[in-house]
Amino acid sequence: MKKVVGIIGGMGPLATADLFEKIILHTEARTDQEHLRVVIDSNTDIPDRTEALLHGGEDPVPELAKSAVRLASIGAQVLVMPCNTAHGFYDRIAAAVDVPVLNMIDLTREALKEKGIRRAGLLATDGTVETGIYQNAFAGSGIELLVPEGEDQQAVMDIVYDGVKAGRSDFDATAFRRTCEHLLAAGAETLVLGCTELPPAFADYHLDYPCVDPTLELALGAIRAAGGTVRL
Amino acid sequence: MKKVVGIIGGMGPLATADLFEKIILHTEARTDQEHLRVVIDSNTDIPDRTEALLHGGEDPVPELAKSAVRLASIGAQVLVMPCNTAHGFYDRIAAAVDVPVLNMIDLTREALKEKGIRRAGLLATDGTVETGIYQNAFAGSGIELLVPEGEDQQAVMDIVYDGVKAGRSDFDATAFRRTCEHLLAAGAETLVLGCTELPPAFADYHLDYPCVDPTLELALGAIRAAGGTVRL
Repeated sequence: MKKVVGIIGGMGPLATADLFEKIILHTEARTDQEHLRVVIDSNTDIPDRTEALLHGGEDPVPELAKSAVRLASIGAQVLVMPCNTAHGFYDRIAAAVDVPVLNMIDLTREALKEKGIRRAGLLATDGTVETGIYQNAFAGSGIELLVPEGEDQQAVMDIVYDGVKAGRSDFDATAFRRTCEHLLAAGAETLVLGCTELPPAFADYHLDYPCVDPTLELALGAIRAAGGTVRL
Repeated sequence: MKKVVGIIGGMGPLATADLFEKIILHTEARTDQEHLRVVIDSNTDIPDRTEALLHGGEDPVPELAKSAVRLASIGAQVLVMPCNTAHGFYDRIAAAVDVPVLNMIDLTREALKEKGIRRAGLLATDGTVETGIYQNAFAGSGIELLVPEGEDQQAVMDIVYDGVKAGRSDFDATAFRRTCEHLLAAGAETLVLGCTELPPAFADYHLDYPCVDPTLELALGAIRAAGGTVRL
């Protein structure tokens, strides 16, 4: 019997749709009925995670936990959270519900290890970078993380907030491209798209750099945890 | 206060993701928090609708109703069902839950009326075509529906079941193209993509015929019903 996957979503909504689509496209299935049952709470009442981590903004855990409990109440047996920054609250969310919550950051580290990557550039929000969500999970892994600084980091925040979250298909990605190129020039073998708004940004703004997509790793992890067969 | 949209999904999963994405992309919002809350049950336990309508297959209403009730239990205040064929069971599903269920077929008829269309080709499953789901909803509307016959209708079933639902990006769409061209040659001003697997098929197989997309009309209807502002 396959397990039901629950997606704690809304961070942002497009990242949630991106994860859902990746779960569908990477599940081996020939009919509707062979696909996994997936339940989603695209809960846009969840406050901004970076604001909470760095600027004293409203704690997002109560709403995150509400979504987790709601999804469990309608049958979710394994939960996922397509927001890297929300993983700064991972322990409190996992403690709020009896259903296991997959950890996207750990899945990404394992994917990088399997690919034999030794040095990666981290593209993530200020909240994710400054609280060391990736750095802590990668400690002792043998993988060095390069982090953008100053204007380069600001360009990551801008494409996430003023581009994807604002729904602007005409956003100018020039500064963000510079960030990517600086990381690659500094020796990064690949770029970690450490904000779930970035995979849609790479598609929408036609960015084409070597990268690892934590949303995809989470989708594959969810399919496996639910007992489905992965189609690569 | 905006309403929570509930999507009774899984018919198929990709059509569900397509509707979810269209709701997001067509909502006027600059931050996560300005988007609508959307809850989804991609319930792949729902039996095939055409099988039930035409070949004595298992009744899908109990599972459809279960999803409706579950979504209401976690806050859904307006429900949508991204499956044209499931609208053959519309009255029974609407009766199973206290929350209003939008009708995709009626929304599509109104969209065609607004565009001034007088004659449209219907691309839909055997279940939708043979039970007259569209023909009944369009009676007296002044819009004539042209329906493919024989091999042409089989080509619609094939692209839906052997192409999209089977996840085959290499599916040969030649026969389906012929169906579209026959309808247009017979005087159809536009094609109604009357199966929710067809909008993804048009994108994936690079089909480019004049068409009306009921999934998009349902997305716009859901945004309006929830009190959101449509971005076209």
